Amino acid sequence: MGTIVQKFGGTSVADAAKIRLAAERIVRAKREGNSIIAVVSARGDLTDELVALSHEVSAAPPRREMDMLLSTGEQQSVALMAMAVDALGEEAISFSGAQIGIVTDSFHTKAKIKNIDPTRIIEALDAGKIAIVAGFQGVDENFNVTTLGRGGSDTTAVAIAGVLKADVCEIYTDVGGVYTADPRLVPDARKIERLSYDEMLELASLGARVMQARSIEFANKYNVAIHVRPSYSDSEGTYIVREVPEMEGIVVSGAAVSEAEAKITLRAVPDRPGVAAAVLGGFAARKINVDMIIQNISASGFADMSLTVPMSDLAEAREVAVALTEDLDAGRVEVDDNIAKLSVVGIGMRSHTGVAEKMFSVLAAEGINIQMISTSEIKISVVIDQASAQRALRAIHRAFELEKAPA
Amino acid sequence: MGTIVQKFGGTSVADAAKIRLAAERIVRAKREGNSIIAVVSARGDLTDELVALSHEVSAAPPRREMDMLLSTGEQQSVALMAMAVDALGEEAISFSGAQIGIVTDSFHTKAKIKNIDPTRIIEALDAGKIAIVAGFQGVDENFNVTTLGRGGSDTTAVAIAGVLKADVCEIYTDVGGVYTADPRLVPDARKIERLSYDEMLELASLGARVMQARSIEFANKYNVAIHVRPSYSDSEGTYIVREVPEMEGIVVSGAAVSEAEAKITLRAVPDRPGVAAAVLGGFAARKINVDMIIQNISASGFADMSLTVPMSDLAEAREVAVALTEDLDAGRVEVDDNIAKLSVVGIGMRSHTGVAEKMFSVLAAEGINIQMISTSEIKISVVIDQASAQRALRAIHRAFELEKAPA
Repeated sequence: MGTIVQKFGGTSVADAAKIRLAAERIVRAKREGNSIIAVVSARGDLTDELVALSHEVSAAPPRREMDMLLSTGEQQSVALMAMAVDALGEEAISFSGAQIGIVTDSFHTKAKIKNIDPTRIIEALDAGKIAIVAGFQGVDENFNVTTLGRGGSDTTAVAIAGVLKADVCEIYTDVGGVYTADPRLVPDARKIERLSYDEMLELASLGARVMQARSIEFANKYNVAIHVRPSYSDSEGTYIVREVPEMEGIVVSGAAVSEAEAKITLRAVPDRPGVAAAVLGGFAARKINVDMIIQNISASGFADMSLTVPMSDLAEAREVAVALTEDLDAGRVEVDDNIAKLSVVGIGMRSHTGVAEKMFSVLAAEGINIQMISTSEIKISVVIDQASAQRALRAIHRAFELEKAPA
Repeated sequence: MGTIVQKFGGTSVADAAKIRLAAERIVRAKREGNSIIAVVSARGDLTDELVALSHEVSAAPPRREMDMLLSTGEQQSVALMAMAVDALGEEAISFSGAQIGIVTDSFHTKAKIKNIDPTRIIEALDAGKIAIVAGFQGVDENFNVTTLGRGGSDTTAVAIAGVLKADVCEIYTDVGGVYTADPRLVPDARKIERLSYDEMLELASLGARVMQARSIEFANKYNVAIHVRPSYSDSEGTYIVREVPEMEGIVVSGAAVSEAEAKITLRAVPDRPGVAAAVLGGFAARKINVDMIIQNISASGFADMSLTVPMSDLAEAREVAVALTEDLDAGRVEVDDNIAKLSVVGIGMRSHTGVAEKMFSVLAAEGINIQMISTSEIKISVVIDQASAQRALRAIHRAFELEKAPA
């Protein structure tokens, strides 16, 4: 009796059998009286296969052509899904990003949605059809195909839900929801019933890998209720919703570990005003996202500066760092890609003190050294040795009693 | 120094190595000073794989969705080709059918081109870029993706050449040209230097499988010079051009055998006016294309009627025939899918007599029975036993001395 956006990721449409299963779920929701828009990703590993193929023909494929290539993955999926729904006796119509006017900027391979024209989807829904929409893709103002970056189908789904004022945006996953920690690392991790956008945004950025961070920003902006659900059963997953006062009672909602960053240390940087800005500016100029940064106490006019960068930018970041040490007449550059970032997230931190203290003493009791620290209003992250990361995560999970449902 | 359309079929872009080879050819032609538009098909067996996948999700996939699915094959090819050209140091830009406004009717899976807007291609060429265009596909007036049927990339290439008034439309094949007969069946078959549109049209319809028949109609209408060329070398292939008087000197240009038809015989059909029309009307109503039709001499008010239909329509055609015999109170239906159609084609037949006589006496000398005959101004076809077809083709090829180049 409502409007539901259902998003199926690559593993949920990996082969014909899984596509048929997803189609059954779509048809069931339709027959319960709802208007359904299904947003579909490329089949399983197809995107990776196409990327590999592109590198066989070019060492540096132009991004515009990469988008033209990769967008075929979702187009195949929507066509197959529409066929599967049709075979179950419901009318379906597939749409590419271009066909429903998902207009983006022109930053190929990581475009941002500027506008969605829902006319064609609304026409289809009014005609009693199920709309099957290609995730991850759009077109710029000159009809060049663009893509939204890995995980972009989440953003497509949430954006459509926002434009249509859908009752809920269901994200189907083979994990089944958002957990207090990665269940593969923490056996007694618990599925979280309800999270605020802010918490999910922090977790998404910290390696929880459930949803693209940008999709949560959209959900927040357009007030879209998200339900991250299991693709393998009808049970409830995790609702991601606007914050309500009672959420503050939960001090720590979840914990996460990320091994996707590396630490770069610039030794013996002259300790004078403007140097830190020069260092950060050097990385920013190359679009390298510096996450954490610390500087030790100056000794005889020089200090060591450490920062973390995404592992995927490490080679470029090292070049930048070496160039900076030459410009600044600083010491050598050291790289440590054997680090992990351990984080705890919770809205309750805003009003509860002592979270950092508890986290640090748990790690001390485990004999784990903290290399860097960064905090936000609702998050504390520390950099530790990668070898200790899983043990640290389990200790933190236990210390904050995350396995127990909140009262 | 001209404008050249180059069309690469599925085998010419089957893998990364072949795509790179085709890209080298494109770049070479560009660096000789030409403006190049490359029209590209789907990689090798990808279309067949996608069709198989569609049948895994639906017993009867809707045609609109089939087009949405299959059109991704060419889109992948153009992106990969543009990457390969770029890697060789020339600027390229890929276009889907939708992006360059190839507007078709809405007959999904066998749409016909209504209009092409060359603006974007011309802009690309004027900017010094190589335009890489997806063959086989277009969009209807509501932006639904359509496809032009198997071999439709030929039609895309010829239509673009026509709209741009290109100097030549080069069709690259792994056969290397049009032959006097299929070289796999007739070892001394000879590559034909020059053919008229009418002859190529007949050969294309008769199983020569070099080009889609509709593409030749386009070439004829817009006077596009076609050059069917080998993809594996730089040697010349076959030019398909407007007829010139000297072509009439060649009585028979080529011969072909097709096993793609079956014969249906309706026994003891009442021999009265209107019956033949009723029979043909019955097939036409089901869109079954009847090729040849004969009726034997009436005996006591009843006659036998035989007709040939495409093998792919045989099951449906048999149903139609059985229904017709019931309606007409006729005798039984017999089906023979063990036939072959042997044809000779040549413009010179218009002005030279004796071709049919020679063909029939050669077959008689070989002891091969002729079951049905049909003729046009420039073609004679006979239906014979399939087992004798290759022997008959070789005998005819020899009798008309097709292995010898015309004087």
